[in-house]
Amino acid sequence: MEIKILKNIFAANEAVADEIRDILRQKKIFMIDMMGSPGGGKTAVTDRIISSLKSKYRIAVIEADVSTAKDAEKLAVHNIPIIQIETNLFGRECHVESSWVKKCLEDFDLENLDFVIVENIGNLVCPAEFELGDDLRVVVLSITEGEDKPVKYPLMFNSSQAVVLNKIDLLPYLKYDLGEVKRNIGSVNPAMKVFEASAVTGQGFDVFISYLEENIERKINTI
Amino acid sequence: MEIKILKNIFAANEAVADEIRDILRQKKIFMIDMMGSPGGGKTAVTDRIISSLKSKYRIAVIEADVSTAKDAEKLAVHNIPIIQIETNLFGRECHVESSWVKKCLEDFDLENLDFVIVENIGNLVCPAEFELGDDLRVVVLSITEGEDKPVKYPLMFNSSQAVVLNKIDLLPYLKYDLGEVKRNIGSVNPAMKVFEASAVTGQGFDVFISYLEENIERKINTI
Repeated sequence: MEIKILKNIFAANEAVADEIRDILRQKKIFMIDMMGSPGGGKTAVTDRIISSLKSKYRIAVIEADVSTAKDAEKLAVHNIPIIQIETNLFGRECHVESSWVKKCLEDFDLENLDFVIVENIGNLVCPAEFELGDDLRVVVLSITEGEDKPVKYPLMFNSSQAVVLNKIDLLPYLKYDLGEVKRNIGSVNPAMKVFEASAVTGQGFDVFISYLEENIERKINTI
Repeated sequence: MEIKILKNIFAANEAVADEIRDILRQKKIFMIDMMGSPGGGKTAVTDRIISSLKSKYRIAVIEADVSTAKDAEKLAVHNIPIIQIETNLFGRECHVESSWVKKCLEDFDLENLDFVIVENIGNLVCPAEFELGDDLRVVVLSITEGEDKPVKYPLMFNSSQAVVLNKIDLLPYLKYDLGEVKRNIGSVNPAMKVFEASAVTGQGFDVFISYLEENIERKINTI
Protein backbone atom coordinates (compact mmCIF):
# COMPACT_ATOMS: atom_id res chain seq x y z
CA MET A 1 0.00 0.00 0.00
CA GLU A 2 2.76 2.35 0.93
CA ILE A 3 4.69 1.49 -2.23
CA LYS A 4 1.58 2.12 -4.32
CA ILE A 5 1.23 5.58 -2.76
CA LEU A 6 4.85 6.36 -3.50
CA LYS A 7 4.34 5.27 -7.11
CA ASN A 8 1.32 7.56 -7.33
CA ILE A 9 3.38 10.48 -6.05
CA PHE A 10 6.08 9.88 -8.66
CA ALA A 11 3.54 9.36 -11.48
CA ALA A 12 1.69 12.57 -10.60
CA ASN A 13 4.99 14.44 -10.44
CA GLU A 14 6.05 13.08 -13.86
CA ALA A 15 2.76 14.11 -15.44
CA VAL A 16 3.19 17.72 -14.30
CA ALA A 17 6.85 17.65 -15.39
CA ASP A 18 5.60 16.75 -18.89
CA GLU A 19 3.23 19.73 -18.79
CA ILE A 20 6.15 21.97 -17.84
CA ARG A 21 8.22 20.60 -20.75
CA ASP A 22 5.37 21.55 -23.11
CA ILE A 23 5.09 25.06 -21.67
CA LEU A 24 8.86 25.65 -21.88
CA ARG A 25 8.97 24.37 -25.47
CA GLN A 26 6.10 26.62 -26.53
CA LYS A 27 7.58 29.68 -24.84
CA LYS A 28 11.17 28.86 -25.88
CA ILE A 29 12.45 29.00 -22.33
CA PHE A 30 15.48 27.05 -21.11
CA MET A 31 15.31 25.73 -17.53
CA ILE A 32 17.95 24.15 -15.30
CA ASP A 33 17.49 22.22 -12.07
CA MET A 34 20.48 22.99 -9.86
CA MET A 35 21.07 20.46 -7.10
CA GLY A 36 23.76 19.67 -4.53
CA SER A 37 24.57 19.27 -0.85
CA PRO A 38 23.74 21.98 1.69
CA GLY A 39 26.46 24.60 1.55
CA GLY A 40 28.04 23.32 -1.66
CA GLY A 41 27.60 26.75 -3.22
CA LYS A 42 24.42 26.55 -5.33
CA THR A 43 23.38 30.13 -4.55
CA ALA A 44 26.87 31.48 -5.26
CA VAL A 45 26.91 29.60 -8.58
CA THR A 46 23.45 30.96 -9.40
CA ASP A 47 24.75 34.43 -8.60
CA ARG A 48 27.68 33.99 -11.03
CA ILE A 49 25.37 32.70 -13.78
CA ILE A 50 23.02 35.65 -13.41
CA SER A 51 25.89 38.18 -13.41
CA SER A 52 27.35 36.62 -16.55
CA LEU A 53 24.17 36.15 -18.54
CA LYS A 54 21.62 38.75 -17.46
CA SER A 55 22.66 41.20 -20.18
CA LYS A 56 22.07 38.53 -22.82
CA TYR A 57 19.04 36.62 -21.52
CA ARG A 58 15.93 37.41 -19.52
CA ILE A 59 16.42 35.28 -16.41
CA ALA A 60 14.13 34.24 -13.55
CA VAL A 61 14.95 32.18 -10.47
CA ILE A 62 12.97 29.74 -8.36
CA GLU A 63 14.65 29.34 -4.97
CA ALA A 64 13.74 26.45 -2.69
CA ASP A 65 14.56 26.07 0.97
CA VAL A 66 13.11 24.16 3.88
CA SER A 67 12.89 27.40 5.79
CA THR A 68 13.84 31.07 5.31
CA ALA A 69 14.13 33.25 2.17
CA LYS A 70 17.86 33.92 2.67
CA ASP A 71 18.97 32.73 -0.77
CA ALA A 72 16.36 34.82 -2.57
CA GLU A 73 17.46 37.82 -0.51
CA LYS A 74 21.07 37.30 -1.60
CA LEU A 75 20.02 37.35 -5.26
CA ALA A 76 17.64 40.30 -4.93
CA VAL A 77 20.40 42.74 -6.01
CA HIS A 78 20.03 41.49 -9.58
CA ASN A 79 16.54 42.90 -9.85
CA ILE A 80 15.17 39.90 -11.77
CA PRO A 81 12.01 37.86 -11.02
CA ILE A 82 12.64 35.52 -8.08
CA ILE A 83 10.17 33.29 -6.27
CA GLN A 84 11.11 31.62 -3.00
CA ILE A 85 9.49 28.29 -2.14
CA GLU A 86 9.60 27.33 1.53
CA THR A 87 9.08 23.59 1.33
CA ASN A 88 8.10 23.16 4.97
CA LEU A 89 4.83 24.87 4.04
CA PHE A 90 4.10 21.90 1.75
CA GLY A 91 4.77 19.29 4.44
CA ARG A 92 7.47 17.62 2.35
CA GLU A 93 10.76 19.17 3.08
CA CYS A 94 13.50 17.42 1.22
CA HIS A 95 12.99 18.18 -2.47
CA VAL A 96 11.14 20.33 -5.00
CA GLU A 97 8.13 18.88 -6.86
CA SER A 98 7.03 19.73 -10.37
CA SER A 99 3.62 21.05 -9.28
CA TRP A 100 5.33 23.76 -7.21
CA VAL A 101 7.52 24.75 -10.16
CA LYS A 102 4.47 24.89 -12.43
CA LYS A 103 2.78 27.22 -9.95
CA CYS A 104 5.86 29.47 -9.94
CA LEU A 105 5.98 29.50 -13.76
CA GLU A 106 2.35 30.66 -13.79
CA ASP A 107 3.42 33.65 -11.71
CA PHE A 108 6.24 34.64 -14.10
CA ASP A 109 5.68 36.65 -17.30
CA LEU A 110 6.70 33.79 -19.61
CA GLU A 111 6.50 35.92 -22.77
CA ASN A 112 9.46 37.86 -21.44
CA LEU A 113 11.71 35.06 -20.22
CA ASP A 114 14.54 33.04 -21.81
CA PHE A 115 16.07 31.18 -18.92
CA VAL A 116 14.79 29.84 -15.59
CA ILE A 117 17.09 28.59 -12.83
CA VAL A 118 15.58 26.31 -10.20
CA GLU A 119 17.78 26.08 -7.13
CA ASN A 120 16.69 22.89 -5.43
CA ILE A 121 16.87 21.96 -1.72
CA GLY A 122 20.36 21.16 -0.44
CA ASN A 123 20.20 17.36 -0.56
CA LEU A 124 21.98 14.73 -2.68
CA VAL A 125 19.17 12.19 -2.41
CA CYS A 126 15.51 13.10 -2.80
CA PRO A 127 15.67 15.92 -5.41
CA ALA A 128 17.12 13.44 -7.92
CA GLU A 129 13.93 11.39 -7.74
CA PHE A 130 11.63 14.24 -8.78
CA GLU A 131 11.67 15.32 -12.45
CA LEU A 132 10.86 19.01 -12.87
CA GLY A 133 10.57 19.15 -16.67
CA ASP A 134 13.86 21.06 -16.99
CA ASP A 135 16.32 20.94 -19.91
CA LEU A 136 19.44 20.37 -17.84
CA ARG A 137 20.32 19.09 -14.41
CA VAL A 138 23.45 20.55 -12.85
CA VAL A 139 25.05 19.23 -9.65
CA VAL A 140 27.14 21.65 -7.61
CA LEU A 141 29.69 19.53 -5.73
CA SER A 142 32.12 21.28 -3.42
CA ILE A 143 35.59 19.71 -3.30
CA THR A 144 35.41 20.06 0.49
CA GLU A 145 32.85 17.22 0.42
CA GLY A 146 35.41 14.58 -0.55
CA GLU A 147 35.90 12.50 -3.67
CA ASP A 148 33.38 9.74 -2.97
CA LYS A 149 30.02 11.51 -3.33
CA PRO A 150 29.32 10.42 -6.95
CA VAL A 151 29.46 6.74 -6.03
CA LYS A 152 27.66 7.24 -2.72
CA TYR A 153 24.79 9.16 -4.34
CA PRO A 154 24.72 7.56 -7.81
CA LEU A 155 21.20 8.60 -8.86
CA MET A 156 22.03 12.29 -8.40
CA PHE A 157 25.05 12.04 -10.71
CA ASN A 158 23.49 9.52 -13.04
CA SER A 159 20.43 11.63 -13.77
CA SER A 160 22.33 14.94 -14.23
CA GLN A 161 24.29 16.16 -17.23
CA ALA A 162 26.86 18.48 -15.66
CA VAL A 163 28.73 18.93 -12.41
CA VAL A 164 30.39 22.09 -11.12
CA LEU A 165 33.33 21.04 -8.94
CA ASN A 166 33.07 24.12 -6.78
CA LYS A 167 35.46 25.77 -4.28
CA ILE A 168 38.46 24.74 -6.38
CA ASP A 169 40.29 27.70 -4.79
CA LEU A 170 40.54 25.60 -1.61
CA LEU A 171 42.44 22.79 -3.37
CA PRO A 172 45.86 23.78 -1.89
CA TYR A 173 44.46 23.41 1.63
CA LEU A 174 42.76 20.03 1.26
CA LYS A 175 43.87 16.46 0.79
CA TYR A 176 41.81 16.09 -2.35
CA ASP A 177 42.43 13.97 -5.42
CA LEU A 178 40.86 15.52 -8.55
CA GLY A 179 41.68 12.40 -10.55
CA GLU A 180 39.76 10.25 -8.08
CA VAL A 181 36.60 12.37 -8.09
CA LYS A 182 36.65 12.39 -11.90
CA ARG A 183 37.04 8.62 -12.00
CA ASN A 184 34.11 8.33 -9.57
CA ILE A 185 31.96 10.63 -11.71
CA GLY A 186 32.93 8.67 -14.82
CA SER A 187 32.04 5.37 -13.19
CA VAL A 188 28.43 6.42 -12.57
CA ASN A 189 27.96 8.74 -15.58
CA PRO A 190 30.66 8.63 -18.27
CA ALA A 191 28.94 11.37 -20.32
CA MET A 192 28.83 13.90 -17.48
CA LYS A 193 30.46 17.28 -18.14
CA VAL A 194 32.81 18.32 -15.33
CA PHE A 195 33.64 21.99 -14.67
CA GLU A 196 36.29 22.90 -12.10
CA ALA A 197 35.36 26.29 -10.73
CA SER A 198 35.19 28.62 -7.77
CA ALA A 199 32.12 30.75 -7.27
CA VAL A 200 34.12 32.86 -4.79
CA THR A 201 37.02 33.75 -7.10
CA GLY A 202 35.23 33.27 -10.43
CA GLN A 203 37.95 30.87 -11.59
CA GLY A 204 36.75 28.41 -14.25
CA PHE A 205 33.36 30.04 -14.76
CA ASP A 206 33.98 31.17 -18.34
CA VAL A 207 33.96 27.55 -19.55
CA PHE A 208 30.84 26.64 -17.58
CA ILE A 209 29.01 29.78 -18.75
CA SER A 210 29.88 28.99 -22.39
CA TYR A 211 28.44 25.52 -21.92
CA LEU A 212 25.22 27.00 -20.56
CA GLU A 213 25.04 29.51 -23.42
CA GLU A 214 25.39 26.77 -26.04
CA ASN A 215 22.56 24.85 -24.45
CA ILE A 216 20.34 27.93 -24.06
CA GLU A 217 20.95 28.97 -27.70
CA ARG A 218 20.09 25.51 -28.96
CA LYS A 219 16.78 25.61 -27.13
CA ILE A 220 15.57 29.15 -27.71
CA ASN A 221 16.70 29.54 -31.34
CA THR A 222 15.96 26.24 -33.00
CA ILE A 223 12.52 25.07 -31.98
CA MET B 1 -4.68 9.36 2.30
CA GLU B 2 -1.10 10.17 1.62
CA ILE B 3 -0.82 12.14 4.85
CA LYS B 4 -2.32 9.26 6.77
CA ILE B 5 0.28 6.92 5.31
CA LEU B 6 3.06 9.30 6.28
CA LYS B 7 1.67 9.47 9.80
CA ASN B 8 1.65 5.68 9.90
CA ILE B 9 5.28 5.57 8.84
CA PHE B 10 6.29 8.00 11.58
CA ALA B 11 4.16 6.23 14.24
CA ALA B 12 5.63 2.82 13.34
CA ASN B 13 9.12 4.30 13.43
CA GLU B 14 8.49 5.87 16.86
CA ALA B 15 7.21 2.59 18.28
CA VAL B 16 10.39 0.75 17.28
CA ALA B 17 12.50 3.66 18.58
CA ASP B 18 10.83 3.12 21.96
CA GLU B 19 11.74 -0.58 21.83
CA ILE B 20 15.36 0.39 21.10
CA ARG B 21 15.37 2.78 24.09
CA ASP B 22 14.25 -0.11 26.30
CA ILE B 23 16.91 -2.45 24.95
CA LEU B 24 19.67 0.15 25.40
CA ARG B 25 18.51 0.91 28.95
CA GLN B 26 18.47 -2.75 29.91
CA LYS B 27 21.88 -3.42 28.38
CA LYS B 28 23.37 -0.12 29.61
CA ILE B 29 24.47 0.92 26.16
CA PHE B 30 24.86 4.54 25.06
CA MET B 31 23.92 5.32 21.44
CA ILE B 32 24.43 8.43 19.34
CA ASP B 33 22.81 9.35 16.01
CA MET B 34 25.38 11.31 14.00
CA MET B 35 23.89 13.39 11.22
CA GLY B 36 25.05 16.08 8.79
CA SER B 37 25.46 17.06 5.15
CA PRO B 38 27.23 14.82 2.66
CA GLY B 39 30.95 15.36 3.02
CA GLY B 40 30.72 17.29 6.27
CA GLY B 41 33.07 14.79 7.91
CA LYS B 42 30.85 12.33 9.80
CA THR B 43 33.07 9.35 9.07
CA ALA B 44 36.23 11.25 10.00
CA VAL B 45 34.59 12.34 13.28
CA THR B 46 33.50 8.75 13.94
CA ASP B 47 37.08 7.66 13.30
CA ARG B 48 38.38 10.18 15.89
CA ILE B 49 35.79 9.08 18.46
CA ILE B 50 36.71 5.41 18.05
CA SER B 51 40.46 6.14 18.27
CA SER B 52 39.94 8.17 21.45
CA LEU B 53 37.51 5.88 23.25
CA LYS B 54 38.05 2.31 22.10
CA SER B 55 40.48 1.54 24.93
CA LYS B 56 37.85 2.65 27.47
CA TYR B 57 34.56 1.46 25.94
CA ARG B 58 33.41 -1.42 23.77
CA ILE B 59 32.20 0.36 20.65
CA ALA B 60 30.15 -0.73 17.64
CA VAL B 61 29.21 1.27 14.55
CA ILE B 62 26.18 1.27 12.26
CA GLU B 63 27.10 2.95 8.97
CA ALA B 64 24.38 4.06 6.56
CA ASP B 65 24.80 5.05 2.94
CA VAL B 66 22.57 5.16 -0.09
CA SER B 67 25.10 3.05 -1.93
CA THR B 68 28.56 1.52 -1.30
CA ALA B 69 30.25 0.33 1.91
CA LYS B 70 33.11 2.87 1.65
CA ASP B 71 32.64 4.36 5.11
CA ALA B 72 32.59 0.98 6.81
CA GLU B 73 35.75 0.05 4.90
CA LYS B 74 37.49 3.21 6.19
CA LEU B 75 36.67 2.24 9.78
CA ALA B 76 37.57 -1.44 9.39
CA VAL B 77 41.12 -0.78 10.71
CA HIS B 78 39.71 -0.42 14.21
CA ASN B 79 38.65 -4.05 14.32
CA ILE B 80 35.35 -3.33 16.08
CA PRO B 81 31.85 -4.55 15.09
CA ILE B 82 30.55 -2.53 12.13
CA ILE B 83 27.39 -3.06 10.11
CA GLN B 84 26.84 -1.19 6.86
CA ILE B 85 23.27 -0.42 5.82
CA GLU B 86 22.80 0.36 2.13
CA THR B 87 19.52 2.25 2.19
CA ASN B 88 18.79 1.85 -1.51
CA LEU B 89 18.09 -1.80 -0.73
CA PHE B 90 15.17 -0.61 1.41
CA GLY B 91 13.67 1.59 -1.29
CA ARG B 92 13.88 4.67 0.90
CA GLU B 93 17.17 6.32 0.44
CA CYS B 94 17.37 9.51 2.38
CA HIS B 95 17.42 8.55 6.06
CA VAL B 96 17.83 5.69 8.55
CA GLU B 97 14.75 4.15 10.18
CA SER B 98 14.54 2.67 13.65
CA SER B 99 13.57 -0.80 12.39
CA TRP B 100 16.87 -1.06 10.50
CA VAL B 101 18.81 -0.01 13.61
CA LYS B 102 16.93 -2.58 15.70
CA LYS B 103 17.87 -5.27 13.19
CA CYS B 104 21.53 -4.22 13.44
CA LEU B 105 21.40 -4.26 17.25
CA GLU B 106 20.10 -7.83 17.10
CA ASP B 107 23.23 -8.76 15.16
CA PHE B 108 25.60 -7.22 17.74
CA ASP B 109 26.65 -8.98 20.95
CA LEU B 110 24.89 -6.49 23.24
CA GLU B 111 26.27 -8.04 26.43
CA ASN B 112 29.69 -6.85 25.33
CA LEU B 113 28.93 -3.33 24.17
CA ASP B 114 28.98 0.09 25.87
CA PHE B 115 28.62 2.53 23.01
CA VAL B 116 26.97 2.44 19.57
CA ILE B 117 27.55 5.10 16.94
CA VAL B 118 24.97 5.38 14.16
CA GLU B 119 26.32 7.35 11.20
CA ASN B 120 23.23 8.49 9.36
CA ILE B 121 22.83 9.30 5.65
CA GLY B 122 24.39 12.59 4.55
CA ASN B 123 21.29 14.79 4.56
CA LEU B 124 20.19 17.74 6.70
CA VAL B 125 16.47 17.10 6.20
CA CYS B 126 14.94 13.63 6.39
CA PRO B 127 17.10 11.97 9.08
CA ALA B 128 15.89 14.56 11.61
CA GLU B 129 12.33 13.29 11.19
CA PHE B 130 13.11 9.70 12.17
CA GLU B 131 13.77 8.96 15.85
CA LEU B 132 16.17 6.06 16.34
CA GLY B 133 15.89 5.64 20.11
CA ASP B 134 19.38 7.06 20.67
CA ASP B 135 20.62 8.99 23.73
CA LEU B 136 22.21 11.86 21.85
CA ARG B 137 21.93 13.44 18.42
CA VAL B 138 25.10 15.05 17.10
CA VAL B 139 25.21 17.21 13.95
CA VAL B 140 28.51 17.43 12.10
CA LEU B 141 28.52 20.80 10.32
CA SER B 142 31.52 21.72 8.20
CA ILE B 143 32.41 25.40 8.24
CA THR B 144 32.79 25.17 4.45
CA GLU B 145 28.97 24.89 4.30
CA GLY B 146 28.40 28.50 5.33
CA GLU B 147 26.87 30.07 8.43
CA ASP B 148 23.19 29.79 7.50
CA LYS B 149 22.52 26.03 7.73
CA PRO B 150 21.03 26.05 11.26
CA VAL B 151 18.26 28.47 10.24
CA LYS B 152 17.75 26.82 6.85
CA TYR B 153 17.40 23.33 8.36
CA PRO B 154 15.91 24.15 11.76
CA LEU B 155 14.51 20.71 12.65
CA MET B 156 17.96 19.11 12.34
CA PHE B 157 19.47 21.59 14.81
CA ASN B 158 16.40 21.84 16.98
CA SER B 159 16.16 18.11 17.59
CA SER B 160 19.89 17.56 18.25
CA GLN B 161 21.90 18.28 21.39
CA ALA B 162 25.38 18.93 20.03
CA VAL B 163 27.07 20.22 16.89
CA VAL B 164 30.65 19.62 15.81
CA LEU B 165 31.75 22.65 13.76
CA ASN B 166 34.15 20.62 11.68
CA LYS B 167 37.05 21.56 9.38
CA ILE B 168 37.95 24.49 11.63
CA ASP B 169 41.51 24.15 10.22
CA LEU B 170 40.18 25.75 6.99
CA LEU B 171 39.04 28.91 8.78
CA PRO B 172 41.98 31.06 7.52
CA TYR B 173 41.04 30.28 3.91
CA LEU B 174 37.31 31.01 4.09
CA LYS B 175 35.13 34.04 4.53
CA TYR B 176 33.40 32.58 7.54
CA ASP B 177 31.94 34.27 10.58
CA LEU B 178 32.03 32.00 13.65
CA GLY B 179 29.95 34.50 15.61
CA GLU B 180 27.22 34.36 12.97
CA VAL B 181 26.95 30.57 12.86
CA LYS B 182 26.79 30.50 16.68
CA ARG B 183 24.04 33.12 16.68
CA ASN B 184 22.17 31.06 14.09
CA ILE B 185 22.54 27.90 16.17
CA GLY B 186 21.41 29.77 19.28
CA SER B 187 18.36 31.13 17.50
CA VAL B 188 17.00 27.65 16.70
CA ASN B 189 18.39 25.79 19.74
CA PRO B 190 19.79 27.91 22.60
CA ALA B 191 20.78 24.81 24.61
CA MET B 192 22.86 23.25 21.84
CA LYS B 193 26.50 22.45 22.69
CA VAL B 194 28.92 23.73 20.05
CA PHE B 195 32.36 22.15 19.54
CA GLU B 196 34.85 23.76 17.15
CA ALA B 197 37.02 20.97 15.82
CA SER B 198 38.93 19.50 12.92
CA ALA B 199 38.77 15.78 12.31
CA VAL B 200 41.79 16.14 10.01
CA THR B 201 44.14 17.82 12.50
CA GLY B 202 42.49 16.61 15.70
CA GLN B 203 42.20 20.20 16.96
CA GLY B 204 39.34 20.67 19.47
CA PHE B 205 38.52 16.99 19.82
CA ASP B 206 39.60 16.68 23.46
CA VAL B 207 36.66 18.85 24.58
CA PHE B 208 34.15 17.00 22.41
CA ILE B 209 35.43 13.60 23.55
CA SER B 210 35.14 14.66 27.23
CA TYR B 211 31.54 15.69 26.56
CA LEU B 212 30.80 12.26 25.07
CA GLU B 213 32.53 10.50 27.98
CA GLU B 214 30.43 12.39 30.53
CA ASN B 215 27.26 11.38 28.73
CA ILE B 216 28.36 7.76 28.30
CA GLU B 217 29.34 7.48 32.00
CA ARG B 218 26.01 8.88 33.12
CA LYS B 219 24.15 6.27 31.08
CA ILE B 220 26.18 3.14 31.70
CA ASN B 221 26.94 3.69 35.40
CA THR B 222 23.80 5.09 36.92
CA ILE B 223 20.78 3.15 35.68
